Amino acid sequence: MSVQVIEGGITSPKGFKAAGVKCGIKKDKLDLAVIYTEMPAVAAMAYTQNRARAAPIEVMIRDSPRTLRAFVINSGNANALTGPKGIEDAEAMRTSVALPLGLEPIEVGVASTGVIGRFLPMDKVTSGIAQAVKQLDRGTEADMEAAKAIMTTDTRVKSFACHVTLRDGTVATIAGIAKGSGMISPAMRTMHATTLSFIATDACVQGDVSIQWQRIMDSSFNVINVDGDQSTNDISAFMANSAAGGAPADDDPALWEGVLHIAQSLSKAVVVDGEGATKLIEVVVTGAKDDNEARAAARSVVASNLVKAAVFGADPNFGRILAALGNSGSEFDISKVKLTLKNGRTVVLFEQGSPVIVPGSPDENVARAILREKRIMVLLELGVGNGKGEAWGCDLSYEYVHINASYTT
Amino acid sequence: MSVQVIEGGITSPKGFKAAGVKCGIKKDKLDLAVIYTEMPAVAAMAYTQNRARAAPIEVMIRDSPRTLRAFVINSGNANALTGPKGIEDAEAMRTSVALPLGLEPIEVGVASTGVIGRFLPMDKVTSGIAQAVKQLDRGTEADMEAAKAIMTTDTRVKSFACHVTLRDGTVATIAGIAKGSGMISPAMRTMHATTLSFIATDACVQGDVSIQWQRIMDSSFNVINVDGDQSTNDISAFMANSAAGGAPADDDPALWEGVLHIAQSLSKAVVVDGEGATKLIEVVVTGAKDDNEARAAARSVVASNLVKAAVFGADPNFGRILAALGNSGSEFDISKVKLTLKNGRTVVLFEQGSPVIVPGSPDENVARAILREKRIMVLLELGVGNGKGEAWGCDLSYEYVHINASYTT
Repeated sequence: MSVQVIEGGITSPKGFKAAGVKCGIKKDKLDLAVIYTEMPAVAAMAYTQNRARAAPIEVMIRDSPRTLRAFVINSGNANALTGPKGIEDAEAMRTSVALPLGLEPIEVGVASTGVIGRFLPMDKVTSGIAQAVKQLDRGTEADMEAAKAIMTTDTRVKSFACHVTLRDGTVATIAGIAKGSGMISPAMRTMHATTLSFIATDACVQGDVSIQWQRIMDSSFNVINVDGDQSTNDISAFMANSAAGGAPADDDPALWEGVLHIAQSLSKAVVVDGEGATKLIEVVVTGAKDDNEARAAARSVVASNLVKAAVFGADPNFGRILAALGNSGSEFDISKVKLTLKNGRTVVLFEQGSPVIVPGSPDENVARAILREKRIMVLLELGVGNGKGEAWGCDLSYEYVHINASYTT
Repeated sequence: MSVQVIEGGITSPKGFKAAGVKCGIKKDKLDLAVIYTEMPAVAAMAYTQNRARAAPIEVMIRDSPRTLRAFVINSGNANALTGPKGIEDAEAMRTSVALPLGLEPIEVGVASTGVIGRFLPMDKVTSGIAQAVKQLDRGTEADMEAAKAIMTTDTRVKSFACHVTLRDGTVATIAGIAKGSGMISPAMRTMHATTLSFIATDACVQGDVSIQWQRIMDSSFNVINVDGDQSTNDISAFMANSAAGGAPADDDPALWEGVLHIAQSLSKAVVVDGEGATKLIEVVVTGAKDDNEARAAARSVVASNLVKAAVFGADPNFGRILAALGNSGSEFDISKVKLTLKNGRTVVLFEQGSPVIVPGSPDENVARAILREKRIMVLLELGVGNGKGEAWGCDLSYEYVHINASYTT
């Protein structure tokens, strides 16, 4: 493993600056962030596949920027389902960043997250942007403020950084921030990804890396699930500004290993902080027909309300896991299916077509003890091929219902 | 409307008898039902599309009976994911009914519902069947006991009956019972439908009515959603024993109107009694590309956890309804989309690409008042065609989490 985790944030890669301010969309909380790079960054984007796309997503897809110099992000309001005025507002956000920095609007990415169906208070947003642009800086404070300013119902900052040593010996820095707590079931496509995530690196990237970026998405954000609701606003942006120098690293495995590490760290942080979440559920599927079917099976398990509620209650109701597998559409041979729970200890729940644990048995108590842990691994062998895949989700708690029964109230 | 609703139950159609007994799967509750018809009944079946099918479903699909004389159903144990022993047990249930009644086992339908992944206590089941066969009877008591014996987390009996006057003047009786409260997201296919439902009629049916039955499914059980989890055990059975006499009614619109009425009444009763449900959400989609897309859009809205939680909290967070529409895959023209809430009063929430209500407005208070009602109608016009469709769901409450956090405990 050539990835070296470091303390740091979105401005750890050379050339990147950031700021987070309180512009007044939220009551007395950071709600507007700007990320800036001193030199143009090759960009790769991924957007939600929800057909009711937010205005900033429409603008980004329409303009499809290949390089970026900045990104502006507000929280507290999704600027979604806001019609032509929403589009104008998203464009105005870009312009407000571009003007003082001497950039073209198309060089500025834009993203929003928060309540759907309300117009942005553009006077507040505009003056917030002016303030953020003035505050752009490097270092821990800037890192934290930018990371906090993109949060909605998140309870924790999601920020990770690492070093990788590229083929030519160059040490590149990769860093990422993300937000996301509810309405989390992303299925982002690079060509056309409410989790927001921004990964910055000073590695030298020169060409189109959207294929690599899609691969990263499919093994990170696209395999997480909080509530099965794909957002109108999901976006995941990769920016590489080449400030570390060295040879082009477009196809350098070390770079993508580092990016994958950051993307997976952010993704897991999002589900651990899922609305009302008390536990992380990691489903690892093996023996599927292919990797896609393995991921689909894993996703179906973490997406099941019944599985989520059973895990919340530490109830070893394993039939629900297999019922969710049955709904995934993925092929399996029930006589060869093996279901194991793991957290330090392991316990087999189902094997060779039949249940292994019976009510009241010692193994059932082990299963219950594992389910009481904060991190539960579910291993599912399907017995039909060599496909492997993972998905990560959280449990379904009273708190999820509480948060979402009164979101706008 | 030629459907005349009557007081009655599963034995209201001529020739049908039923019984429900306590066999001991559950603690001191009715848990085994037998339905019997004195003359062979033409059968149409629909089964779950979950690939992890329960043993009784496997047996039914394998034997695909065209006519039935009886049906045996147990609750409290799904006989699902129980391997070869589960298949043997399902077959033994049929045989235990067939022998004392002088039938062939293939003339007996079998269904189970309850906890997944446990073996049936066959000694209790067998003696329960013997008792039920002896008690087979007509009338209110038999109706109620059979309807109760198939319940799991259901809190209410689901039983409806009606009369229809067929083309030749024959008055036929149609009656149905159903159970279902959690793990409800059926997508039943007649050829290969945990809600269980049984519709009996004494109308004269002679041929294969599986096309008609699929159409009934697609406008009733297949458009309801409690929690998005399709069960391993869903089954829906139609039995027509011709005891009312008259000409063949296979293609008599009056018959199918009556069957649809019973199927829709049962379906709505299932969602109203969904686990933890406090409200019925009826989504009516118009202006879709076609009826299938309309139904898909409506299903996506009632399946959304965020919509369900918002309705539970009477929170007019209408963006979630449109986000769910965006995830349905159905085509719409956002500039023509119109979203209305209705319950006596109506209030438009979104129109011509933009939100109509704003925070704190009187209309928002009307929306909130409508959402506090027990029955909320959501009208969605998509603006692209003439497709129409409905779906029915319930809200997501603390009680749903409570029930499912401790199902087997």
